[in-house]
Parts: sequence; C-alpha cells; structure tokens
Amino acid sequence: MRQNIYLSNISLNEAINIFLEKIKDFKVETEYVKTYEANGRITAKPIFAKISSPFYNSSAVDGIATVAKKTFTATDKNPVRLKEGVDYVVVDTGDPIPDEYDCVIMAEDLIWVSQDEVEIIKPAIPWQNIRQIGEDIVEGQLILPQSHRIRPADIGALIAGGVFEVEVYKKPKVAIIPTGTELVEPGEELKVGDIIEFNSRVFAAQVKEYGGIPTRFDIVKDDFEKLKAVVDKASKEYDIILLNAGSSAGREDYSKKVIETLGEVYIHGIAIKPGKPVILGKVNNKPIVGIPGFPVSAYFIMENIVKKLINFVQGYDIKDKDKRYIEATLSKRIMSSSKYLEFVRVKLGFIDGKYIAAPIERGAGTTMSLVRADGILEIPEELEGYEKGTRVNVNILKSEDEIKNTILCIGSHDLILDIAADLLAKRGKFTLSSAHVGSIGGILSLKDRETHFATIHLLDVETGEYNKSYVKRYIPNRKIALIKFVKRIQGLMVKKGNPLEINSLEDIVKKGARFVNRQKGSGTRILLDYELKRLGINPKDIIGYEREEYTHISVAAQIAKGNADAGLGVFSAAKIMELDFIPIANEEYDIAIPVEYLELEGVKQFLEVINSEEFKNEIDKLGGYDYSNLGEIIIIE
Amino acid sequence: MRQNIYLSNISLNEAINIFLEKIKDFKVETEYVKTYEANGRITAKPIFAKISSPFYNSSAVDGIATVAKKTFTATDKNPVRLKEGVDYVVVDTGDPIPDEYDCVIMAEDLIWVSQDEVEIIKPAIPWQNIRQIGEDIVEGQLILPQSHRIRPADIGALIAGGVFEVEVYKKPKVAIIPTGTELVEPGEELKVGDIIEFNSRVFAAQVKEYGGIPTRFDIVKDDFEKLKAVVDKASKEYDIILLNAGSSAGREDYSKKVIETLGEVYIHGIAIKPGKPVILGKVNNKPIVGIPGFPVSAYFIMENIVKKLINFVQGYDIKDKDKRYIEATLSKRIMSSSKYLEFVRVKLGFIDGKYIAAPIERGAGTTMSLVRADGILEIPEELEGYEKGTRVNVNILKSEDEIKNTILCIGSHDLILDIAADLLAKRGKFTLSSAHVGSIGGILSLKDRETHFATIHLLDVETGEYNKSYVKRYIPNRKIALIKFVKRIQGLMVKKGNPLEINSLEDIVKKGARFVNRQKGSGTRILLDYELKRLGINPKDIIGYEREEYTHISVAAQIAKGNADAGLGVFSAAKIMELDFIPIANEEYDIAIPVEYLELEGVKQFLEVINSEEFKNEIDKLGGYDYSNLGEIIIIE
Repeated sequence: MRQNIYLSNISLNEAINIFLEKIKDFKVETEYVKTYEANGRITAKPIFAKISSPFYNSSAVDGIATVAKKTFTATDKNPVRLKEGVDYVVVDTGDPIPDEYDCVIMAEDLIWVSQDEVEIIKPAIPWQNIRQIGEDIVEGQLILPQSHRIRPADIGALIAGGVFEVEVYKKPKVAIIPTGTELVEPGEELKVGDIIEFNSRVFAAQVKEYGGIPTRFDIVKDDFEKLKAVVDKASKEYDIILLNAGSSAGREDYSKKVIETLGEVYIHGIAIKPGKPVILGKVNNKPIVGIPGFPVSAYFIMENIVKKLINFVQGYDIKDKDKRYIEATLSKRIMSSSKYLEFVRVKLGFIDGKYIAAPIERGAGTTMSLVRADGILEIPEELEGYEKGTRVNVNILKSEDEIKNTILCIGSHDLILDIAADLLAKRGKFTLSSAHVGSIGGILSLKDRETHFATIHLLDVETGEYNKSYVKRYIPNRKIALIKFVKRIQGLMVKKGNPLEINSLEDIVKKGARFVNRQKGSGTRILLDYELKRLGINPKDIIGYEREEYTHISVAAQIAKGNADAGLGVFSAAKIMELDFIPIANEEYDIAIPVEYLELEGVKQFLEVINSEEFKNEIDKLGGYDYSNLGEIIIIE
Repeated sequence: MRQNIYLSNISLNEAINIFLEKIKDFKVETEYVKTYEANGRITAKPIFAKISSPFYNSSAVDGIATVAKKTFTATDKNPVRLKEGVDYVVVDTGDPIPDEYDCVIMAEDLIWVSQDEVEIIKPAIPWQNIRQIGEDIVEGQLILPQSHRIRPADIGALIAGGVFEVEVYKKPKVAIIPTGTELVEPGEELKVGDIIEFNSRVFAAQVKEYGGIPTRFDIVKDDFEKLKAVVDKASKEYDIILLNAGSSAGREDYSKKVIETLGEVYIHGIAIKPGKPVILGKVNNKPIVGIPGFPVSAYFIMENIVKKLINFVQGYDIKDKDKRYIEATLSKRIMSSSKYLEFVRVKLGFIDGKYIAAPIERGAGTTMSLVRADGILEIPEELEGYEKGTRVNVNILKSEDEIKNTILCIGSHDLILDIAADLLAKRGKFTLSSAHVGSIGGILSLKDRETHFATIHLLDVETGEYNKSYVKRYIPNRKIALIKFVKRIQGLMVKKGNPLEINSLEDIVKKGARFVNRQKGSGTRILLDYELKRLGINPKDIIGYEREEYTHISVAAQIAKGNADAGLGVFSAAKIMELDFIPIANEEYDIAIPVEYLELEGVKQFLEVINSEEFKNEIDKLGGYDYSNLGEIIIIE
C-alpha cells in the first residue's frame, strides 16, 4: 500500500527560518499611494518631514497677542493698560502671531476696561502661550522609519509634515487554490463523500486581515497535469501561492509532486500538532505553501506561517507581535506528545481573581473548536503535557475584558443553555461560555473553583432525589445555592415510526437494538444505570453500551442517521432530529452556584435572562420541559 | 470679549452612558451577506447549523474500513486474514465509510500478504478511527449567537454547517465633516494662518478600522448657514456624523449652535484631557459628535467615544475590549489635574525584566507624540499624578513583543540617532526608541536602570575632558562601557549670509542678537556655559538666554524662520535648515551602556549598525562629524 509517509519533523521556528532564508530575495514591488489611503501599509523608505508644523508661530490659547516687555511692570496695584491695534491684537487658538508680538495672554487673565482696552496685573513671559514654528514637526525630521506599518495617527503626522504621498510596498497578491475531487461548492447538492469547500474562504478572510489581497481560485480536482498548470500560471501572476489540502501523505495528494516538478520543496512536515503535513517551497521564484486539509490544521498554519510570510515579502518581520498571552490555571491534566509543539484550544474564565483554562476538543477536523475557543495553549515540543492546576501561558483570542465578562458554566449540557447564551449575548456585555463535561465534572469544577456555576441533574440512587445530596457530599466547604432550573423528560429516542417497536429499556435487549450511550459521569448515564439496576438488566446485554457520546444531540444524530437504533436523552434533541420519543423518567436539571457569585453582575444578568418570559417562550417551542419551579433557590451549606 | 466658555465636566463613562442611552433606539438596518464575505460583521440573529458536519461517517485516517466483529479473535499467533471487496475496502482520510463497515484500521497496523489481502494481529474496536456524523457540528446546533463579531474561523464553521448567507448589521455610514476657515487641502499653497486639514483623514482610517464606512466631506468654511445645511443633509443620508473642530468655545465655533438648531446637544464638555470640549448630540435622529480640533484631542475622542458608537449602532458593546494593559514603572514624576482623566503618552522599554514608562510631550497639538508613543498612561480623575517609580498600568499601542524588541536610548539627541534607528528598523526585528532629555537626564536614567543606554556629550569643566568623569561620578554602582561614537563640531548657527556678522560668542552680546538656548542639563548648554565663563560673558547680557529648546534642529528652525538670530548647535542641523555655521568647539558624543547589556541581541545589532559602512556614508552626507574613533570601548568601573 503505496506512497511515502515519511515527513520531516523539524521545529516550527527552524522551519520558518529556513523558509524565509530561502525566499529572502523575493519582495513585492513598492508603489506611491496617497498618504490618506496608506493606513496599514508598510513603508519602503524612511519618511522625512517636508515642512515644519506649525510653519508659523501661532497662539496656543484664546486671548491677546502682545509684547512681553510692555507688561513687565504690571502688578495688582499698578496694572498695565494695553490698547487694541497699538499694543495687542485679539487671537484665537491657532491664529498666527504677527511678527511684532512675542507672547499671548489668556482671555482668563484679561480685565476689560473698554471695547478695545484691557488691563494686565501680572507680567507676561516672552513666548508664553505661543506654539512655535516646528513645535510639533521640524522640516527634515524623520517622521517614520522604513519597514513601519502605517497607523491612523501616522497619517496625521505625515500630512502635517507636508508628506502627501508615501512609498509603500504593494499589498501581496495571494492565490488561494483549493484542491480535491471530494470538494464541492456551497449550495451544490451533497452526496455521501462530498465535502463542502470552506477552507479557502477562511484563508481569504485571514489573508485580508494580514494585509494581503486574496484571490480564491476555482476548485481543482485531483488531476496532476491540471493542478500543475494552475499552480504554474498562478505563480507567474501572484506573489504568494496557497495550495490547500493535498499536503498529507494520502494516495491522492499531488501537492508535493506538483511543487517539486515546477520548483522546489524545502520542507515537508513540521513538528506541530495540528498542522504537521505542511509543505513550504518555491515555484517560479514565488513562495508556495501547501496547507493541510483539516480546518484546524489549516488555521494554525495560516496564523503561524502564512501571516509571517505576507509581512515578510513586504520587508516586515512580525515575529509574534500580535499574540497576547495571559497566565491561567489549567482545569485538568492534559497529555501531549514530546514529538510535537501542540496547539490546544481552551475555554477561559475569570474565577475568584484567577484565569482558568479548560481544554476543549483536540481533533483537527472540528471547526467548532476554533469558534468556541477563547485561547490557545501551546504545549512545547519538549514537554509531555501539564498536570491539572499548572499555571500556563495562554495565547488569548479574545481580550482580557471579554474573558472577564464571560460567565463560565461547566457541567451537563442542555439545549436551553444555548438559548440562554444567545439571549445573554444579545444584551451586549456578558457572554455565557459552557464546557460540557457532565454533571459530576461540573460539580468537581465547582469544588476546585474553576467555574462560576455547574448545571447538573444527578439522581441520588438511595433516595431517588435529585442534586442536593451530591452538592453536599462533593462540595462540603462552600455555601452553594441550588437554583431550580427545569424538569425535563428523559426518554428513549428511536427512529421515526419506531421500526423495532421499542417501548421500554427491556426492549433494547429483547430486540437486539444497537444502543448509543452517554459518557460516564453524565446525569443521563447515572439515570440509565439506575433504571437498568432497578429493572435487573445487565449492561453487558446491551449492544453499544460502551459507545459514548457527549451530548444529547449527538446521540440523537447517531440514531437519525441509522448508526444506532436507540439512546437515552431529552425530548428536544429527539424533536430536532425528528425521532420518536418514549418517556422514561422526569429529571431535575438545576444550577449549582456558590452563594457569593450571586452578586456578580454577569450572573445576575444570566438569572434575569432565564427568568424572562422570552426565555420561557423559547423553551415552550422546544417542548419536553416543565419550568414551574424555575428560579426557586435552595441554600446548601 | 465674547462667548460661553462654560463647558460641563462630567466623567467620560458617565457621558458615554448618557449619550448611548439617548440614542439607544437608533440601530443600523440589517442585511444578508454571503458568509464568505461576512468577516468582521456583527450577527443580527443567532445562527444555527442547517446540516451536520460531517454529514456521513468518514475515515479519520488512511487505512481499511472493515467489520470489527471479524477481527475479534486476532492475535500475534493467530492473525485474521481479510480480503478486499469481501471483508474490507481501502479508505483515505475523509473517505465515507460504506454502511456495511463499522471501523477503520490504520495503514500502519496492516500486514499485506497479497495485492488484495491483509492480516490483522489485534482486534479492532467498533467505531475506531471513524469520524461520526455530527462529530463537528450537529444540525440545529447554535453556531454563533447574535451580537457576535464574525471572525475567519467562524466563516469555516458556518459554511461547514450549511449556512451560506448570514444576517448582519449594515456597516454604519459615517459622515466626516471638516470645518474651519483656516483649513486648506494638502497641496494648496500655504499662507500664514493656514492649517493643512488632516484630522478627517485620520478619522477615515480609524472609522474603517472600527468597522464603519467613512465618507469625507469637503472642508466647510466658518459660515453658520452653510454648515447647518451640510449637517442637515448629512444626517439624513448617513448613520453617524462627525463634525471636526469648532467644538471648543472660540469665537468662530458654530458646531454647538448648528447641532442645537437642528437637533439636541446632550453633552458639551467631558472631564478628560486632551479632548475636553467634545459635543455629543443628535440631529434628525442620528448621533452626532463634535470633535475638538487639536489632533491629539481628536484622537482620544475617536478611540474612546466614536469607536464605541460605531459598534453600538450595530448592537455590539465593545467596552474596552481592545485595550491592552501592562504594568510599568514610571521613569519620572508626573503631575495631573484632579479635575480630569488625563491621557499621557509614554515611551516604553523593557529593562532588566521590567517595563519602564517614560512620559513624552503632553500638548494636544503634537501629532508626533502619537506617532512616537508606545503606550497611553491614563491618570484617573481623582489623582493628582504619580511619583517617579510608581507601578502604573499602561494601555499599550504596540504588542509586548514589539516593546521587548525595543532598544531604549535616553539622553542627548543627535540626527545620527534617527539614521541609526532607521537602519536598525530596516533589519526587521529591533527598533530604537529614543527619548530626548539631555545628557544628564540620560545618565540619571542609566543610574536608575530605566534605559538600555544613554547618549551623552558632557564636558568636564575642570579637566576639559568629555563624559568619563560624569559616568564615574553619577553611576558608581554599575560597570559602564563608554563606546566612542562621534566627535561633532558645535558652532553658532546664524541666518544665511550672517546678516549680523556674528563670528564669536562675544558678538552675540555686542550685536544685541536674539539668542535661542538649549535646555539645562543638555551637553550643548554645559558647553555654552563653559565657554561663556571662559570668555567672561555674563549670561544675563544675552537676549533669549532663558528661551529653551530641546533639540538642535528646533533651535535651527527658530533661526531659519527669523524668531531668533543665533543659537549653539551642530553642523548638520544648520545644514538642513540652510543656516550659516561658525565652529566653536569639537565635542565628543558617546554612548554609555552597562557592560551586561552588550550581550543583548538588540544592542549587538545596534552596534553592528553604527559600525557599518552604510551608516558612515549617511553621516558623511550630513557633514560635521568625525567618526575616526567610532566603536572604541572604554570600561568605567
């Protein structure tokens, strides 16, 4: 079974250095642009002022321009009287100072004795309140060095200094070429095996943010000659080529071969995860990057390599200028291979004055992990991971202010949390960020002060009561408010029409149905085990008992698509996926929150949201919930 | 003498709250845009996935898809043999899994026995290496909440979730109206009293960065009726109006009157400095901001008010999301009025593991202070300033990485520093940031560990020797390397043709020439005082002895424009300003640097730059320097 699977494994920094060294002679051309259109551009030359600013002496205040000497004898008792036209002229801020005057006295210090006469009771100092020639900018002075990214305030200084055109590097033209027979355009009819092409659209937005001009090419099917022709042409017309997918070692991957044929491959494979199978090379003297197809891999290659490249060809070395880091406490142990620099996506919260980082999905294919991430934890190549509680540096994707305005919820997931999150976001200030680790996971996070609240539905199998005893047992040292949220109907989800005629848990075994389970520690799993025990069913007799999903809706999706016959979950998930639903039990889904957090503004707003009519209306639309006790608070000490 | 000078003095936050409350019913309309064109836009509605991603089960690796049950008995000794087409199909990463198979075995775990047969030596687990339906996104799942700014990665998730169009707020159309009879367009012939209009160009760049669409209007002269007509029309066609200048209380300021006539003024005057005389109001139901004319005032109003406004009308509350702060040590005492929140521009350096903030010019008219600033220190209303050495929070305008790559030079200024800064910037990584406080100021900064090095030219009036004794006396506790830089000719600068026939310092007094001096503590001042003493000249006999400028070139500029007849300075400054030059003395301009800093990469590069031929060639072009000792190092302990 075919092809080379031998990629190199050099470090990211080493790879970038080699690549940039190889292409260092390639720079985009320069051009002259109007200064007022130059924002964000990189200067090609140092820029010196052509005129001074101000280029005449002007008044810094509203008042009168006069001669300082005439005021030298002024005192309270012997004021000096000055006459308009003879001794002074009235000036406003910015007005020029006529040559015969050498100071300005502020309006507040004048005593008006007539329409055109004033008295002064203290002497003026020569040049007081005068903005002298060149006070801001002196002719010939360096305004901006070369290799400087022009900002709005620079535009003001340049124009003030008489520079109305500037020489800057042209924006690099970046060709984005999506390749792959499996790719289809958005809107085309989807067949099994098709993948909607979207990486190129993400790249285009990124390239624009980095300061380049993206051009997205049509999808090129996996055909060596065709791809070669497209890359050859693109490399003659564009400054940088991005070739997407086809950079792994799979059998249909032509990227490397095409680049080798037309030019040179410098590097294939970098010790990062995700993103390893990247290709760095040159075709027709233009840099080309073969970007892996998995969207998360592609994202990190864009952020860590292509961003530098787009700046580099404009003579601008960005290093890690735009990355911002904070120190956070890791909420759980995380392992990583010592062969790679790994980029781990994390959720961030600000709890009791400390940042908390909670790792989320690590797959390279999960676009949602990038949407949901608040930050990136970079685990260095030489480390095998971090223990829970380690203080780590996290590259933040939001501002610290946004993170501080995030209410963190760790616990069991329910669709109504998404609705609450949306209604809270609509108010503008706070956002709800939820990490789905099941009820017990949520309670443990509360205990370790890693979340603002936990959403839980934990059945006490001794008493048949929900939640209270768990909070008491697991969090003995904190005063917790248990806020009643909703009762929800848990039931068996089965394919529409219930073809296997499943009406109870016993039927799962009897009919040999393929089951799909929730993960250990989830409230639904505890409920299932409780019911199985009560009914005397051995879990081993259930096909698929060990197959775990992390949310209600992913269980429902498996059944909808025919990968399983039954699963336990809530009504709303069954409804969205158009499944039949057989009620099994009512469970209590509540919010456990330390009493002191009830005073946080974000928490208050969240509680307002869930008590609002708007929220209840949305719940009604989902169906399967009883919110008659919503908002009741039980204090557990 | 006229007009109301009574502005209100409410706090910035209070003013913003009042203003946003008053205009809260105004929002821009929404529109549907292609998802791939939606980067940076604000969502108007929550966005839910229309399809699952993946929407079929697919392989997560390269290998074979097979049935897990068939492999259950596989061991080293009893391998299971599988046949293509019967027991398995070959799959690549991303390929769909045919319904009859339930797992994928990686290529690495296969033993090929023939072209179409493999052996397996350990059992597969059902669903291993399969990306299940909805693993990334489940149909119906919330992808983005409302009031969310779309980022590149979001575009990927939206398209993957089948969302090809999104409802977003329209970009606010912002009218920028420059007003003032004194304003002229760049390129027009300049007369005394003219000001080149550039604020509107800065605003346009800022508005674009904030997410609006700027339209810059022609300059409107100070004419009430005309201005009223323009504002009235603009407020019907645009979403936000920015009226520039005319917001102070000067006699030609119509902004307030125009807004009052057409609509309502909510606030005139906010307790900030610079920026106090801002106007916030509404005309034809559209928000309007009267922005002060001083460029630095205008900048802070844009950053602190208009940015929020542009987001607010799109349902997006930015708070201070984009401001980043670091903690820095203040390098000198700074006083501020307790009546205002003051924005002080600072230079930042990273010295011995600590950030150092050095305040620079505070005038509202100095555009260069914004160009040169690395950060903004916000002194709260209730404080009267900070003592030297206080740890303060600074809002940084560069990234921490850029600041860490800045070599800080505090001391005496010379044009050759600008040349060195430019050549260093060209290399890409490090920048030289110099604060001009004179030689003694530089030495004191070295002593207090607030700069990487100081540039000095200090004459020991006892020995006639330069620099060494000062370093020894002021910095007894650090091992300092004195790096010989250049000898430069100091001389009298006089108007071209030397109309007063000044040929020595004595002539200044004799001819009654108007002198312009350098500030106390500068090397040039010490040289002047030394020479005056030597010649027995009483400083009181020199007209303008007390008039101080901070750089050679600003002294030269004063003479060039006729504000003074003579000043002491270097040849290069005289040459740029086309002045005559009468040599007085040769002085030694050197670099004092702690020995341990010689190992810093940035310092090494700086030293490479000043020892380069390129640098020496540039110095030759200026003239007036002798660099025969450049690079010699004297260690002073």
